Parts: sequence; C-alpha cells; structure tokens
Amino acid sequence: MSQGLTIALDGMGGDHGPETVIGGAEVASVRHPDIRFLIFGDEAQIRPLLDKHPRVAQASEIIHTDVSISMDDKPSQALRRGRKTSSMWRAIDAVKDGKAQVAVSAGNTGALMAMAKVILKTMPNVERPALAALWPTARGESVALDLGATVGADAFQLVQFAVMGEAFARVIFNIEQPTVGLLNIGEEEVKGTEEVKAAAQMLREAQLPIRFHGFVEGDDIAKGTVDVVVTDGYTGNIALKTAEGTARLIVSYLRGAMQSSLMSRIGYLFARGAFKALAAKIDPRSSNGAVFLGLNGLVVKSHGATDAIGFAAAIDVAADVASADLVSKIITDLDRLTGLKHSPRIQNTEIAESEAALS
Amino acid sequence: MSQGLTIALDGMGGDHGPETVIGGAEVASVRHPDIRFLIFGDEAQIRPLLDKHPRVAQASEIIHTDVSISMDDKPSQALRRGRKTSSMWRAIDAVKDGKAQVAVSAGNTGALMAMAKVILKTMPNVERPALAALWPTARGESVALDLGATVGADAFQLVQFAVMGEAFARVIFNIEQPTVGLLNIGEEEVKGTEEVKAAAQMLREAQLPIRFHGFVEGDDIAKGTVDVVVTDGYTGNIALKTAEGTARLIVSYLRGAMQSSLMSRIGYLFARGAFKALAAKIDPRSSNGAVFLGLNGLVVKSHGATDAIGFAAAIDVAADVASADLVSKIITDLDRLTGLKHSPRIQNTEIAESEAALS
Repeated sequence: MSQGLTIALDGMGGDHGPETVIGGAEVASVRHPDIRFLIFGDEAQIRPLLDKHPRVAQASEIIHTDVSISMDDKPSQALRRGRKTSSMWRAIDAVKDGKAQVAVSAGNTGALMAMAKVILKTMPNVERPALAALWPTARGESVALDLGATVGADAFQLVQFAVMGEAFARVIFNIEQPTVGLLNIGEEEVKGTEEVKAAAQMLREAQLPIRFHGFVEGDDIAKGTVDVVVTDGYTGNIALKTAEGTARLIVSYLRGAMQSSLMSRIGYLFARGAFKALAAKIDPRSSNGAVFLGLNGLVVKSHGATDAIGFAAAIDVAADVASADLVSKIITDLDRLTGLKHSPRIQNTEIAESEAALS
Repeated sequence: MSQGLTIALDGMGGDHGPETVIGGAEVASVRHPDIRFLIFGDEAQIRPLLDKHPRVAQASEIIHTDVSISMDDKPSQALRRGRKTSSMWRAIDAVKDGKAQVAVSAGNTGALMAMAKVILKTMPNVERPALAALWPTARGESVALDLGATVGADAFQLVQFAVMGEAFARVIFNIEQPTVGLLNIGEEEVKGTEEVKAAAQMLREAQLPIRFHGFVEGDDIAKGTVDVVVTDGYTGNIALKTAEGTARLIVSYLRGAMQSSLMSRIGYLFARGAFKALAAKIDPRSSNGAVFLGLNGLVVKSHGATDAIGFAAAIDVAADVASADLVSKIITDLDRLTGLKHSPRIQNTEIAESEAALS
C-alpha cells in the first residue's frame, strides 16, 4: 500500500525535536520499508542522527532549513517568522508541490494549522478544516473530530465534519460503511444546541450515503457506539483532554494501589505481564497522529511530547491516509453536499488573526 | 451540623425506586442520626420497606402520593402529569413550604430540573440554574458545573456559575477561598469561544472576592488544578460522561488483563486488597449527588441507576449544603454581581418547553 509514497517530515517540531523525528522514522521504516522521507530541518542536527539510523538515512533526503517554529509561537508569529523558510512550512509546501503525499509534524498545533491552511487552502465546500484522530474504545478504535482545529461549528460545518470523518474512518479502518454519531447531551431529538439539532436534521434528510446513527453521548465515545464521533472543536478538544486526564488519574490510582502493601507488591510481580499488556493498551502513543481534514493536501499532527514510538504511529496514520488518497475521496464525498443549506460562519479568532498577519 | 435538619425524599425516583431510597436513607441515618426524612411516594410500597429499616422508620414520615414521574417522561409531560400530585413535585414543594431544607430525588433529571424551577424559582440575578457535582481528582475532589442543567451559557451566566460554584465548594470542602477556573481549550487569553473569553475578563476585572485562576483545560479537571471548574451545561455534560466512559473502559481493560493468564490471576489474589481499595476510590457512587444551584431552595439529584450506597452519598451532599444554608450564602455572593454587564440569554429549549406547557 505504501509503495512509492514520500512523506515530508518537519524535523524540528515537537518537544524533543529531531531525535524523536528520526527515531520515529526508524521505527516506521521497519513497518513500511518502501516509504521515502523528505526531512526538513537543521542539517547539522539531523545528519548525525541519520548516521546512527542507516535504514532511515537510506530512505531519506535532508532539506536544510534555518528557521524552526517554537512550541509557544503564536500562529501569527509563526507565519510571520516561518513563512517559506521554516522546516514546518517547507514540509507542508512539499505536499502542495507534489514532492510528498503527506506531511507529518510534532510542532505547535496552532502554527501547523495556520500554515497548512495558508499553503494548502481549504477544499471546495469546506470553510473550516477539522482535526481528526483515533480514539481507543471498548470495540477497538473510533475516529473523533473536530478535536480543536476550529472553535465552534455551525450545523453545516458539523455535516462537513461528518462527511470528512466518515471518509477517514473508511480508509483507516478499512470498512465500507462506518457509522457516524453526533456528540450531544442526550439521545432524544429535542436535546442539545441549535447547531447539533440542525446538523442531525440535515444528516437524516440529506440522503447522503452515510450511516447516521443519531446523537451519541460522552460515554458512547469510549463504548465505541459509532465509528465516527462528530463534534465542534471546542467540545471535542475538551472531551479529548478530559479523557486523557481521567485515564492518567486512574493509572495513578492503580499505581498507588499496587504499591500500598507487601501483598499488593507481590501481586504486582505475578501479574507483571498483565500490567504490561494493560499499559500497552492504554498507551497514548499508539493512537498518536491526528489528521487535518478539509485541506487540499494531507497534514498529520503528532503529539508534541511524544517519543519515537509515538511519532512512528503518526507516520503510520500518514501512510494510511496518503496511500488511500484520502483527499480525492473527501472531495468526491463533499460534492454531495452542494445545495445543502448553510448557516452563518463561526469565527476562528486564531486563524483570522494569522490571515490578518499575512495580508 | 445536621441537627434539626429535615430532608424531603422523592421515594419513587430512580431506576430502582423506593428500595434504593429507603436503603440509602438507612445508610445515611447511621452517619446523620439527627436528620428527619419526609418520604413522598406510594405508601403501599414504602411502608413494608420501612418495616425492614426501623432506624429510618423512626426518623421518617411517609406522605402518600399517587403519581410517579417515570425516567423517560419529558419535562413537559412530567409537569402536566405530576404537578402538585407526584412524589417528585411534593418533595420539592416541601422545601418551598419550609417543611424540609432540601429535597433529594433519583428521578429523571429534566423533570426534576423543570419542577424545581417552577416551584422554587430562580434567585434574583440568576437566569439559569446550574447542576454542580463533585469530581474526583488527583488532589481529592473538585466541584464542576454546569453539568447539564442548561444548554449553553453566555458570559454573564458563566460568571454566575463561578460565583455559585465557589460558594458550593466553600461549604462542601470547608475551605475559605476555593480556586476557580474556566474550562477552555487552552490557557492563553486569546483562545476559546467568545463567551468564555468575555467571562474570564469579567472575572478578572469585576473585583469579586473570588480566587480566579484563569482558564483550565480538560485534563486539569482530573488533576485538580482548581477547586471549581466552570463551564456551560453542554460542554460540562459531555466532559462528565466522557470521563465516566473513559473510567469504565480502563477498568474493563484492567479486568481483562487480570484474567488473561494464570500468573495474572494469582497476582490478582495477592493484590485483592489493593484492587478493592482502587475500586472504592473510583466508585462513582462516592461522588453521587449533584446540586441545582441558583434556585430559592435546595434540590439534590442522585444518579438514577445508583444503589443505596450511592443514594446515601447524595443524602450526605444534601445534609452538607442544607446545614450550611447554601442558598443564603449564594444570594449574598450574587448580590456583588449587580451592575455587571449582561449579554443576551441563551435558550434552554427543554425548560422553555416545560414553561410553555404550563401556561
């Protein structure tokens, strides 16, 4: 599937910079020996790392860049400082130029989003891109979006998210008709914000080839009630971080409990294999890699704090969406929305700000 | 603290009805031997249960009612059918009449909210009540609100929630100056919806005697970064249910892991005490009991699916807020908001619907 694929890597993004990126590419190359990498970043830092990883070195080309976007640059600053020169910009630009089929960066989300939007532009029929990622569930994994690309979404934007998320799920889970649910505070039709109610009505009535399940609630995400959970970026981001916080809390409770007595420590020793399996199961690294959907090109965002294992998972996601040509699939699907009624836009201050900075 | 306190119980609310209510009152009476109960419901069902629980029987009076609100009655239906006659209505009415200081019901949230609002009315300076509850954290517990009483909230309503939640935290945690945070998708001032940004500005500038921490993110809830997490009812409800779903998922993973091999089963036997302690720590029953804030009287909502242990926890919350006279405290605190600028209301369809049904 990944034959002939070239992935552009932002070599300087993330809390740990090139080390994580090259380390991640090494792990990913074992799984995808055919992938080629274009690595954008400071050659002086990247070259010695490639010397240690001959497998990646063989599959890679370094494109030296002088500027790196920092993790706390504002999107507007990043665009001002990093336009055309930064490793992040150049990696995305490689996708636009067709030199790579997808870009991966562990850098600052706001900057990546702003640059991706400026370089790749939104697809026809899409006003706002969405950030979609995999969410571990009792049934395996689901796709959730928007996880924070845009603050708020009107009904029509939620419908766009549904269409884009469904296409992503088809590709990433390799299933024909994923089920789609709208996140809400109850399953009854009368509940929820005006936006979700109107979006549900559109999804029910628009005769889209989507298996629309209806509303789902917060606890349905982890249950895996649907394959695709659709919500606005504000709610989605808060739900995601609330889930991460809850998982960490329970793990810390568990750790405390297992150290609480001699008996529990002995028990821990016996069950060590099981605890390792559990740790692997809830390892956030395995679901790393969120995709910006709705742009004329693919950009995958890796968690900034991840390590090589996590970065490799983001490369896996990138390889999956790029080899399935997700962009064309989404454009075709979105075509079906032409003619659907549209309500006024919701502003995204940060993006608006970035665009203002450029003009 | 609970001397002279009378608590009105909706004897018919919840998935398991009177059995849970009387069982819960039994557990609570051991901790609060001075509390008296007014139990509203079907005497034919309640009397035999009281015969089995002489401690509660001695502290209680049954007030027979013919009508019970079902768990899936819409608020409008509940108001039409249960007005003045249902166990739920009568329990809240006892608070209004001063016969009880607080009412507890495990019944249908929408109906309880609608009835409480019709009977007790909102306080001066409050347009929409909020549902506040305890949230387990790494530091102990925090208060979170609104967890679903109202869909959406404008900036001024968020400020009201902050004031009410702070008063609740003072009383329930017995601390003088709880910290308050606004739930958002980033800590920077420029991030988030217009409502949270404006609310943050009001909380910073209004010279309220509140320790306002600023924005917090989803993972800060479980960290216990602040004592009071303020958000709108849509986001709060989704965050709460997402956290519950995540907790259940990890527990199911853990259970699976411990049964996965002979070694892990042996380990489980050794560590059984630790697992029991862990189970107690993440037991949702221990944080059961959400309070409607912003009404001229106290109503506590117990989870509908809980058992006697959980219902007793809701009675504990009720005893705490009633004996501290939370309503007067909140009215005093809200007085300080007079003069703060107000933006247009957000509609709550369900409540609007219930009110329409009554007029």
